Amino acid sequence: MDQTSALVEQIVEAWTQLHSQQPLVQCITNSVAANYTANVLLAAGASPAMIDNRFEAESFTQIAAALSINLGTPTQEQMQAMQISAQTAQHTHTPWVLDPVGYGPILKWRSDMVDDLLQYHPTVIRGNASEISTLAGKQTQSKGVDSTLDSAEVYSHAKVLLEHAECIAISGESDFILTQEIDAVIQVNGGSYLQPKVTATGCALGALIAAYCAVTTPTIATIAAHTHFAIAGKLAFEQAPMLGQFNVAFMDYIYSLNPELIQQYADIKILTL
Amino acid sequence: MDQTSALVEQIVEAWTQLHSQQPLVQCITNSVAANYTANVLLAAGASPAMIDNRFEAESFTQIAAALSINLGTPTQEQMQAMQISAQTAQHTHTPWVLDPVGYGPILKWRSDMVDDLLQYHPTVIRGNASEISTLAGKQTQSKGVDSTLDSAEVYSHAKVLLEHAECIAISGESDFILTQEIDAVIQVNGGSYLQPKVTATGCALGALIAAYCAVTTPTIATIAAHTHFAIAGKLAFEQAPMLGQFNVAFMDYIYSLNPELIQQYADIKILTL
Amino acid sequence: MDQTSALVEQIVEAWTQLHSQQPLVQCITNSVAANYTANVLLAAGASPAMIDNRFEAESFTQIAAALSINLGTPTQEQMQAMQISAQTAQHTHTPWVLDPVGYGPILKWRSDMVDDLLQYHPTVIRGNASEISTLAGKQTQSKGVDSTLDSAEVYSHAKVLLEHAECIAISGESDFILTQEIDAVIQVNGGSYLQPKVTATGCALGALIAAYCAVTTPTIATIAAHTHFAIAGKLAFEQAPMLGQFNVAFMDYIYSLNPELIQQYADIKILTL
Repeated sequence: MDQTSALVEQIVEAWTQLHSQQPLVQCITNSVAANYTANVLLAAGASPAMIDNRFEAESFTQIAAALSINLGTPTQEQMQAMQISAQTAQHTHTPWVLDPVGYGPILKWRSDMVDDLLQYHPTVIRGNASEISTLAGKQTQSKGVDSTLDSAEVYSHAKVLLEHAECIAISGESDFILTQEIDAVIQVNGGSYLQPKVTATGCALGALIAAYCAVTTPTIATIAAHTHFAIAGKLAFEQAPMLGQFNVAFMDYIYSLNPELIQQYADIKILTL
Repeated sequence: MDQTSALVEQIVEAWTQLHSQQPLVQCITNSVAANYTANVLLAAGASPAMIDNRFEAESFTQIAAALSINLGTPTQEQMQAMQISAQTAQHTHTPWVLDPVGYGPILKWRSDMVDDLLQYHPTVIRGNASEISTLAGKQTQSKGVDSTLDSAEVYSHAKVLLEHAECIAISGESDFILTQEIDAVIQVNGGSYLQPKVTATGCALGALIAAYCAVTTPTIATIAAHTHFAIAGKLAFEQAPMLGQFNVAFMDYIYSLNPELIQQYADIKILTL
Repeated sequence: MDQTSALVEQIVEAWTQLHSQQPLVQCITNSVAANYTANVLLAAGASPAMIDNRFEAESFTQIAAALSINLGTPTQEQMQAMQISAQTAQHTHTPWVLDPVGYGPILKWRSDMVDDLLQYHPTVIRGNASEISTLAGKQTQSKGVDSTLDSAEVYSHAKVLLEHAECIAISGESDFILTQEIDAVIQVNGGSYLQPKVTATGCALGALIAAYCAVTTPTIATIAAHTHFAIAGKLAFEQAPMLGQFNVAFMDYIYSLNPELIQQYADIKILTL
């Protein structure tokens, strides 16, 4: 079996574990993504809980199987919860995902918080090309919270971020995943050009990575979550090329993905860095 | 006419009143459920308003026909609004529904608030089996905000909660309703196994109970809201067994329910306690 | 070419500019509307960013192409961001839209904030008939956040509001737009009776007006956004008269609107004041 086929088998195994374990995933996320993220996690087989207040953050992270922190529309109360939960996750060795939405000099408040959260060593950092590139120290431009860069231009710079996290994931037309475990870049293809036209898909992907992290290694979790989205997006588009219907079909396929579909449609390349 | 048929006729009458009166329902709810709850209430014929700040809570509850308080993702500002609105509702004899999302020792902040809100005598308390069981003083486990118990195991313990509220509703594969009015348990069947896979359905059900409370007795309101959901869920699943499409069809049927469908599909049993 | 045909051509040009420029639109909006508004803006070709905290409000408004402020479920943190962003928009001559959700004596806190925000001269004020009528100094009744008045009854009173904003838009079964530019009232027809049954459509319309303001004059922007919604609502209803499916089809048509559909379906009348 070649290395790519071995990865696909591990994705299938991760999917199977996600459905049998139904891990409890704590999400501290934004007002745009809250409903959508919960629906994606439920559809994928996980058990989401949006616990984002400082009074319950510590006790809840202690029982959660994974944690997802998203900086989309932070409030001061959420900021406190983020710090407490990230610190708790580090102590309890609970995997956690950091999604630095909008990272950059224009949105300084959240960017300072992202910098601060790095001290608690996220398991995975995921973002679009602009966010990851800026976080990696490159001067880049973004357009609000949407990227102005292509993911393929960025992954070579992103390697420096592996000192902060076990995996770095850059989403775009193709997704690129760097990991401490493998000295290579994993490219995940699929999806549809309609996917970025549905808000919060990236945010929900971050939470799905966290869910997979509860049942497998960070590397496989990150690849599995991206593959899960890539296949669902591809099949949804084939069935429903209109935006509203695409979004409905996407949730159908997030839910109905199975080992056969993974084996048939997973489109993964291993690139040398 | 037997007792069950009489109940169905009262549900039909409640549905008719809901559509003619279009009661104004104040919702203090969580970030996951806000949009979905407003859509469910509009679809069912009510007029929702998500007024959840402490500055407007008192004046708004005074004009609202019913109030729904949900502890899903509380903020400190919302907590203050909850107390003011619950107290106001008690003073103005406005029916109000308490949904103690995640009640239990892990989520102490909200659970303390729930305990505190009981002093304002909610009209109805609704929750899943874990929440209601824990609130009834039984030591139980939950998985985040999802139940690990079956609703049928719990209703016999829940009777003690009737000292706090006129009705107690426990949702699950079957729903069970206890009420001060009838010395029995009402079992409502229907729905679909996909319903708990759509986030915030329970939260929206709590708000729908509040809407019905504005037009009929608490007992009939609680049974009517559960029947409304059970029929919509059952018919939606028959039409669309995929998750995304199910959610669309569910809203279709919340909207298009009518007396004929209620009479044809209401599946209610009266059990001795 | 008559005046109405000239307007339709300008709407087509605005639509074209919206798609080519994809303007960055900052939205400070409510918890019910956040996800829906972002999806509508993405579908329509704009780039939404829900930046609603006081720490980032100034720097973000400085780079935004337009700003939308909606008072649906304000928090204290959002209130601060609204003031900072509105003031910044005035300084940088960035167009901004004010949606005074629930304006009236019952909801005093937000109404005081709306009064205060008028000092920063919104480009467009949009609301339902009750809100606009009350803001224009008429004693009116509303039912929570839904209007109890017809838009046609109100537009003659609304003229006084043109001292605060370049355009006033009143949505209802027909929409009416007053503007400093033209001494007339523009009536936009279309839509469907299902549209007010979907929550946050009015809120999303406010944000879409802001998006169009980034690429054309306030008058054309306001007419274009209302026409965009009116055609999408009309075509969606013809295709899917059930509520859930209507909402899906509405997003399909917000996305797939094009110059041909605008020319074929725009239904605009110019009325003398």
